[in-house]
Amino acid sequence: MRGGGWLEGVLSTYIRKDGLDATSKLVDMVKGSKHYGQIRVAMLSGVTMGGFNVVDMEELYRYTGIPVISVIRRPPDMDSIRRALENLSEPGQRLEAMLRAGDAIELSSRRGKPVYVQYKGLDADIALSIVRSSSLHSRLPEPLRVAHLIATGIILGDSRP
Amino acid sequence: MRGGGWLEGVLSTYIRKDGLDATSKLVDMVKGSKHYGQIRVAMLSGVTMGGFNVVDMEELYRYTGIPVISVIRRPPDMDSIRRALENLSEPGQRLEAMLRAGDAIELSSRRGKPVYVQYKGLDADIALSIVRSSSLHSRLPEPLRVAHLIATGIILGDSRP
Repeated sequence: MRGGGWLEGVLSTYIRKDGLDATSKLVDMVKGSKHYGQIRVAMLSGVTMGGFNVVDMEELYRYTGIPVISVIRRPPDMDSIRRALENLSEPGQRLEAMLRAGDAIELSSRRGKPVYVQYKGLDADIALSIVRSSSLHSRLPEPLRVAHLIATGIILGDSRP
Repeated sequence: MRGGGWLEGVLSTYIRKDGLDATSKLVDMVKGSKHYGQIRVAMLSGVTMGGFNVVDMEELYRYTGIPVISVIRRPPDMDSIRRALENLSEPGQRLEAMLRAGDAIELSSRRGKPVYVQYKGLDADIALSIVRSSSLHSRLPEPLRVAHLIATGIILGDSRP
Protein backbone atom coordinates (compact mmCIF):
# COMPACT_ATOMS: atom_id res chain seq x y z
CA MET A 1 0.00 0.00 0.00
CA ARG A 2 0.98 3.61 -0.39
CA GLY A 3 1.14 4.61 3.27
CA GLY A 4 -2.36 4.48 4.69
CA GLY A 5 -3.73 5.22 1.23
CA TRP A 6 -4.43 2.99 -1.70
CA LEU A 7 -3.68 -0.63 -2.39
CA GLU A 8 -1.07 -1.20 -5.09
CA GLY A 9 -0.63 -4.94 -5.00
CA VAL A 10 -1.36 -8.17 -3.15
CA LEU A 11 1.19 -10.93 -2.56
CA SER A 12 0.48 -14.36 -1.15
CA THR A 13 2.40 -17.50 -0.35
CA TYR A 14 1.98 -20.75 1.56
CA ILE A 15 3.67 -21.68 4.81
CA ARG A 16 3.51 -24.84 6.89
CA LYS A 17 1.32 -24.80 10.00
CA ASP A 18 3.63 -24.76 13.04
CA GLY A 19 6.50 -25.05 10.56
CA LEU A 20 9.83 -23.24 10.41
CA ASP A 21 9.56 -21.76 6.92
CA ALA A 22 7.75 -18.43 7.46
CA THR A 23 10.88 -16.27 7.22
CA SER A 24 12.29 -17.88 4.08
CA LYS A 25 8.88 -17.91 2.37
CA LEU A 26 8.37 -14.21 3.12
CA VAL A 27 11.87 -13.37 1.88
CA ASP A 28 11.23 -15.24 -1.39
CA MET A 29 7.76 -13.70 -1.78
CA VAL A 30 9.01 -10.15 -1.31
CA LYS A 31 12.18 -10.49 -3.39
CA GLY A 32 10.31 -12.28 -6.17
CA SER A 33 7.63 -9.61 -6.46
CA LYS A 34 7.57 -7.00 -9.20
CA HIS A 35 6.95 -4.49 -6.39
CA TYR A 36 10.26 -5.35 -4.67
CA GLY A 37 12.10 -2.18 -5.74
CA GLN A 38 9.27 0.01 -4.45
CA ILE A 39 8.66 -1.45 -1.00
CA ARG A 40 9.99 0.87 1.70
CA VAL A 41 8.72 -0.98 4.79
CA ALA A 42 7.32 -4.45 5.48
CA MET A 43 4.66 -4.78 8.19
CA LEU A 44 3.71 -7.82 10.24
CA SER A 45 0.78 -8.48 12.58
CA GLY A 46 3.11 -10.04 15.11
CA VAL A 47 5.89 -12.49 14.39
CA THR A 48 3.95 -15.76 14.58
CA MET A 49 1.77 -16.95 11.72
CA GLY A 50 0.18 -20.29 10.84
CA GLY A 51 0.21 -21.46 14.44
CA PHE A 52 3.76 -21.02 15.72
CA ASN A 53 5.66 -20.50 12.50
CA VAL A 54 7.88 -17.64 13.70
CA VAL A 55 9.12 -14.85 11.44
CA ASP A 56 12.67 -13.83 12.31
CA MET A 57 12.43 -10.07 11.78
CA GLU A 58 16.20 -9.68 11.80
CA GLU A 59 16.63 -12.22 9.00
CA LEU A 60 13.70 -10.80 7.06
CA TYR A 61 15.33 -7.39 7.18
CA ARG A 62 18.82 -8.71 6.40
CA TYR A 63 17.80 -10.81 3.37
CA THR A 64 15.38 -8.30 1.83
CA GLY A 65 17.11 -5.05 2.81
CA ILE A 66 13.65 -3.73 3.74
CA PRO A 67 12.97 -2.42 7.26
CA VAL A 68 10.36 -4.44 9.14
CA ILE A 69 7.71 -3.27 11.63
CA SER A 70 5.46 -5.55 13.66
CA VAL A 71 2.31 -4.16 15.29
CA ILE A 72 0.20 -6.08 17.78
CA ARG A 73 -2.73 -5.17 19.99
CA ARG A 74 -1.52 -6.88 23.15
CA PRO A 75 1.99 -7.19 24.56
CA PRO A 76 3.38 -10.69 23.96
CA ASP A 77 2.75 -13.01 26.93
CA MET A 78 6.12 -14.73 27.02
CA ASP A 79 5.16 -17.18 29.77
CA SER A 80 2.30 -18.75 27.85
CA ILE A 81 4.41 -18.64 24.67
CA ARG A 82 7.16 -20.62 26.39
CA ARG A 83 4.62 -23.21 27.52
CA ALA A 84 3.09 -23.51 24.03
CA LEU A 85 6.53 -23.94 22.48
CA GLU A 86 7.19 -27.02 24.62
CA ASN A 87 4.79 -29.00 22.45
CA LEU A 88 6.60 -28.15 19.20
CA SER A 89 9.82 -29.14 17.50
CA GLU A 90 12.77 -26.76 17.83
CA PRO A 91 11.37 -24.72 20.74
CA GLY A 92 14.74 -23.02 21.25
CA GLN A 93 15.01 -21.84 17.65
CA ARG A 94 11.46 -20.49 17.72
CA LEU A 95 11.95 -18.68 21.01
CA GLU A 96 15.20 -17.11 19.82
CA ALA A 97 13.52 -15.83 16.66
CA MET A 98 10.73 -14.32 18.78
CA LEU A 99 13.20 -12.67 21.13
CA ARG A 100 15.20 -11.24 18.22
CA ALA A 101 12.13 -9.12 17.39
CA GLY A 102 13.17 -7.02 20.40
CA ASP A 103 11.16 -5.31 23.09
CA ALA A 104 7.73 -4.05 22.08
CA ILE A 105 7.23 -0.30 22.45
CA GLU A 106 3.82 0.75 23.70
CA LEU A 107 2.33 3.39 21.41
CA SER A 108 -0.81 5.19 22.50
CA SER A 109 -3.33 5.52 19.69
CA ARG A 110 -5.91 8.21 19.05
CA ARG A 111 -8.54 5.52 19.64
CA GLY A 112 -7.83 4.96 23.32
CA LYS A 113 -6.20 1.53 23.46
CA PRO A 114 -2.48 1.35 22.66
CA VAL A 115 -0.62 -0.87 20.19
CA TYR A 116 2.76 -2.54 20.65
CA VAL A 117 5.49 -2.02 18.07
CA GLN A 118 8.64 -3.98 17.25
CA TYR A 119 11.01 -2.91 14.46
CA LYS A 120 14.22 -3.82 12.64
CA GLY A 121 16.28 -1.78 10.22
CA LEU A 122 15.04 1.67 11.17
CA ASP A 123 15.03 4.00 14.16
CA ALA A 124 12.34 3.76 16.82
CA ASP A 125 11.02 7.26 16.20
CA ILE A 126 10.67 6.61 12.46
CA ALA A 127 8.98 3.25 13.07
CA LEU A 128 6.50 4.84 15.46
CA SER A 129 5.76 7.74 13.13
CA ILE A 130 5.10 5.29 10.25
CA VAL A 131 2.68 3.34 12.43
CA ARG A 132 0.96 6.51 13.55
CA SER A 133 0.58 8.06 10.10
CA SER A 134 -0.69 4.87 8.45
CA SER A 135 -3.30 4.05 11.13
CA LEU A 136 -6.34 5.80 9.66
CA HIS A 137 -9.40 3.63 10.18
CA SER A 138 -8.46 1.50 13.18
CA ARG A 139 -5.74 1.12 15.78
CA LEU A 140 -3.72 -0.85 13.22
CA PRO A 141 -1.88 0.52 10.17
CA GLU A 142 -3.96 0.26 6.98
CA PRO A 143 -1.72 -2.40 5.37
CA LEU A 144 -2.35 -4.72 8.34
CA ARG A 145 -6.07 -3.94 8.59
CA VAL A 146 -6.50 -4.59 4.85
CA ALA A 147 -4.34 -7.75 4.84
CA HIS A 148 -6.46 -9.12 7.68
CA LEU A 149 -9.72 -8.36 5.82
CA ILE A 150 -8.37 -10.08 2.69
CA ALA A 151 -7.12 -13.16 4.55
CA THR A 152 -10.32 -13.69 6.54
CA GLY A 153 -12.55 -12.83 3.56
CA ILE A 154 -10.82 -15.42 1.38
CA ILE A 155 -10.58 -18.16 4.01
CA LEU A 156 -13.91 -17.63 5.81
CA GLY A 157 -16.01 -16.15 2.97
CA ASP A 158 -16.79 -12.99 4.96
CA SER A 159 -14.07 -10.87 6.50
CA ARG A 160 -13.71 -10.25 10.22
CA PRO A 161 -12.60 -6.94 11.69
CA MET B 1 -15.64 -0.29 -0.09
CA ARG B 2 -16.78 3.16 0.90
CA GLY B 3 -16.98 4.76 -2.54
CA GLY B 4 -13.50 4.97 -3.98
CA GLY B 5 -12.13 5.19 -0.45
CA TRP B 6 -11.33 2.54 2.07
CA LEU B 7 -11.94 -1.17 2.16
CA GLU B 8 -14.53 -2.28 4.72
CA GLY B 9 -14.81 -5.98 3.99
CA VAL B 10 -13.98 -8.81 1.64
CA LEU B 11 -16.42 -11.53 0.58
CA SER B 12 -15.58 -14.65 -1.38
CA THR B 13 -17.38 -17.68 -2.70
CA TYR B 14 -16.85 -20.56 -5.12
CA ILE B 15 -18.51 -21.00 -8.50
CA ARG B 16 -18.24 -23.77 -11.07
CA LYS B 17 -16.07 -23.12 -14.13
CA ASP B 18 -18.41 -22.65 -17.12
CA GLY B 19 -21.25 -23.46 -14.72
CA LEU B 20 -24.64 -21.81 -14.28
CA ASP B 21 -24.41 -20.95 -10.58
CA ALA B 22 -22.72 -17.51 -10.57
CA THR B 23 -25.93 -15.53 -9.98
CA SER B 24 -27.27 -17.69 -7.15
CA LYS B 25 -23.86 -17.88 -5.47
CA LEU B 26 -23.48 -14.09 -5.59
CA VAL B 27 -27.01 -13.61 -4.23
CA ASP B 28 -26.27 -15.97 -1.33
CA MET B 29 -22.88 -14.39 -0.67
CA VAL B 30 -24.27 -10.85 -0.54
CA LYS B 31 -27.41 -11.66 1.44
CA GLY B 32 -25.46 -13.82 3.88
CA SER B 33 -22.88 -11.14 4.62
CA LYS B 34 -22.90 -9.03 7.77
CA HIS B 35 -22.40 -6.06 5.41
CA TYR B 36 -25.69 -6.75 3.58
CA GLY B 37 -27.63 -3.87 5.14
CA GLN B 38 -24.89 -1.39 4.25
CA ILE B 39 -24.24 -2.23 0.60
CA ARG B 40 -25.66 0.48 -1.67
CA VAL B 41 -24.35 -0.79 -5.03
CA ALA B 42 -22.80 -4.04 -6.28
CA MET B 43 -20.14 -3.82 -9.01
CA LEU B 44 -19.10 -6.44 -11.54
CA SER B 45 -16.14 -6.59 -13.95
CA GLY B 46 -18.42 -7.79 -16.72
CA VAL B 47 -21.13 -10.41 -16.41
CA THR B 48 -19.06 -13.55 -17.14
CA MET B 49 -16.81 -15.12 -14.51
CA GLY B 50 -15.12 -18.49 -14.19
CA GLY B 51 -15.11 -19.03 -17.94
CA PHE B 52 -18.69 -18.52 -19.14
CA ASN B 53 -20.58 -18.63 -15.87
CA VAL B 54 -22.90 -15.69 -16.58
CA VAL B 55 -24.23 -13.36 -13.89
CA ASP B 56 -27.82 -12.35 -14.59
CA MET B 57 -27.74 -8.72 -13.43
CA GLU B 58 -31.51 -8.47 -13.41
CA GLU B 59 -31.84 -11.46 -11.07
CA LEU B 60 -28.94 -10.28 -8.93
CA TYR B 61 -30.71 -6.96 -8.47
CA ARG B 62 -34.15 -8.51 -7.94
CA TYR B 63 -33.04 -11.06 -5.31
CA THR B 64 -30.71 -8.76 -3.36
CA GLY B 65 -32.55 -5.46 -3.79
CA ILE B 66 -29.16 -3.86 -4.46
CA PRO B 67 -28.55 -1.96 -7.72
CA VAL B 68 -25.86 -3.55 -9.90
CA ILE B 69 -23.28 -1.87 -12.14
CA SER B 70 -20.94 -3.70 -14.53
CA VAL B 71 -17.85 -1.94 -15.89
CA ILE B 72 -15.67 -3.34 -18.67
CA ARG B 73 -12.77 -1.94 -20.67
CA ARG B 74 -13.95 -3.15 -24.10
CA PRO B 75 -17.44 -3.37 -25.55
CA PRO B 76 -18.67 -6.97 -25.54
CA ASP B 77 -17.97 -8.74 -28.84
CA MET B 78 -21.29 -10.56 -29.23
CA ASP B 79 -20.24 -12.47 -32.36
CA SER B 80 -17.33 -14.24 -30.70
CA ILE B 81 -19.43 -14.73 -27.56
CA ARG B 82 -22.12 -16.50 -29.60
CA ARG B 83 -19.48 -18.77 -31.13
CA ALA B 84 -17.92 -19.59 -27.74
CA LEU B 85 -21.35 -20.39 -26.29
CA GLU B 86 -21.90 -23.11 -28.90
CA ASN B 87 -19.42 -25.33 -27.08
CA LEU B 88 -21.24 -25.08 -23.74
CA SER B 89 -24.42 -26.46 -22.21
CA GLU B 90 -27.46 -24.17 -22.17
CA PRO B 91 -26.13 -21.63 -24.68
CA GLY B 92 -29.57 -19.98 -24.93
CA GLN B 93 -29.88 -19.44 -21.19
CA ARG B 94 -26.37 -17.97 -21.01
CA LEU B 95 -26.95 -15.65 -23.97
CA GLU B 96 -30.26 -14.42 -22.55
CA ALA B 97 -28.61 -13.63 -19.21
CA MET B 98 -25.90 -11.68 -21.04
CA LEU B 99 -28.44 -9.75 -23.09
CA ARG B 100 -30.48 -8.91 -20.00
CA ALA B 101 -27.49 -6.83 -18.83
CA GLY B 102 -28.62 -4.31 -21.45
CA ASP B 103 -26.67 -2.10 -23.81
CA ALA B 104 -23.29 -0.90 -22.59
CA ILE B 105 -22.94 2.88 -22.34
CA GLU B 106 -19.56 4.24 -23.37
CA LEU B 107 -18.18 6.53 -20.67
CA SER B 108 -15.09 8.60 -21.42
CA SER B 109 -12.60 8.56 -18.58
CA ARG B 110 -10.14 11.19 -17.47
CA ARG B 111 -7.39 8.73 -18.48
CA GLY B 112 -8.08 8.75 -22.20
CA LYS B 113 -9.58 5.36 -22.95
CA PRO B 114 -13.29 4.91 -22.21
CA VAL B 115 -15.05 2.24 -20.16
CA TYR B 116 -18.38 0.55 -20.89
CA VAL B 117 -21.12 0.52 -18.28
CA GLN B 118 -24.20 -1.67 -17.82
CA TYR B 119 -26.59 -1.17 -14.90
CA LYS B 120 -29.76 -2.49 -13.26
CA GLY B 121 -31.89 -0.96 -10.52
CA LEU B 122 -30.78 2.65 -10.88
CA ASP B 123 -30.86 5.44 -13.45
CA ALA B 124 -28.18 5.75 -16.10
CA ASP B 125 -27.00 9.14 -14.90
CA ILE B 126 -26.61 7.89 -11.34
CA ALA B 127 -24.79 4.75 -12.49
CA LEU B 128 -22.38 6.81 -14.57
CA SER B 129 -21.75 9.29 -11.78
CA ILE B 130 -20.98 6.44 -9.35
CA VAL B 131 -18.50 4.97 -11.83
CA ARG B 132 -16.90 8.35 -12.40
CA SER B 133 -16.59 9.31 -8.74
CA SER B 134 -15.18 5.94 -7.63
CA SER B 135 -12.54 5.69 -10.39
CA LEU B 136 -9.58 7.27 -8.64
CA HIS B 137 -6.43 5.35 -9.52
CA SER B 138 -7.30 3.72 -12.84
CA ARG B 139 -10.03 3.67 -15.47
CA LEU B 140 -11.95 1.22 -13.28
CA PRO B 141 -13.82 1.99 -10.04
CA GLU B 142 -11.73 1.29 -6.95
CA PRO B 143 -13.86 -1.69 -5.80
CA LEU B 144 -13.16 -3.46 -9.11
CA ARG B 145 -9.47 -2.51 -9.20
CA VAL B 146 -9.00 -3.75 -5.63
CA ALA B 147 -11.04 -6.95 -6.17
CA HIS B 148 -8.88 -7.74 -9.19
CA LEU B 149 -5.64 -7.19 -7.21
CA ILE B 150 -6.91 -9.45 -4.43
CA ALA B 151 -8.06 -12.22 -6.79
CA THR B 152 -4.84 -12.29 -8.82
CA GLY B 153 -2.65 -11.85 -5.73
CA ILE B 154 -4.25 -14.84 -4.03
CA ILE B 155 -4.39 -17.11 -7.08
CA LEU B 156 -1.08 -16.16 -8.76
CA GLY B 157 0.95 -15.11 -5.68
CA ASP B 158 1.60 -11.63 -7.12
CA SER B 159 -1.20 -9.36 -8.30
CA ARG B 160 -1.58 -8.15 -11.86
CA PRO B 161 -2.82 -4.68 -12.75
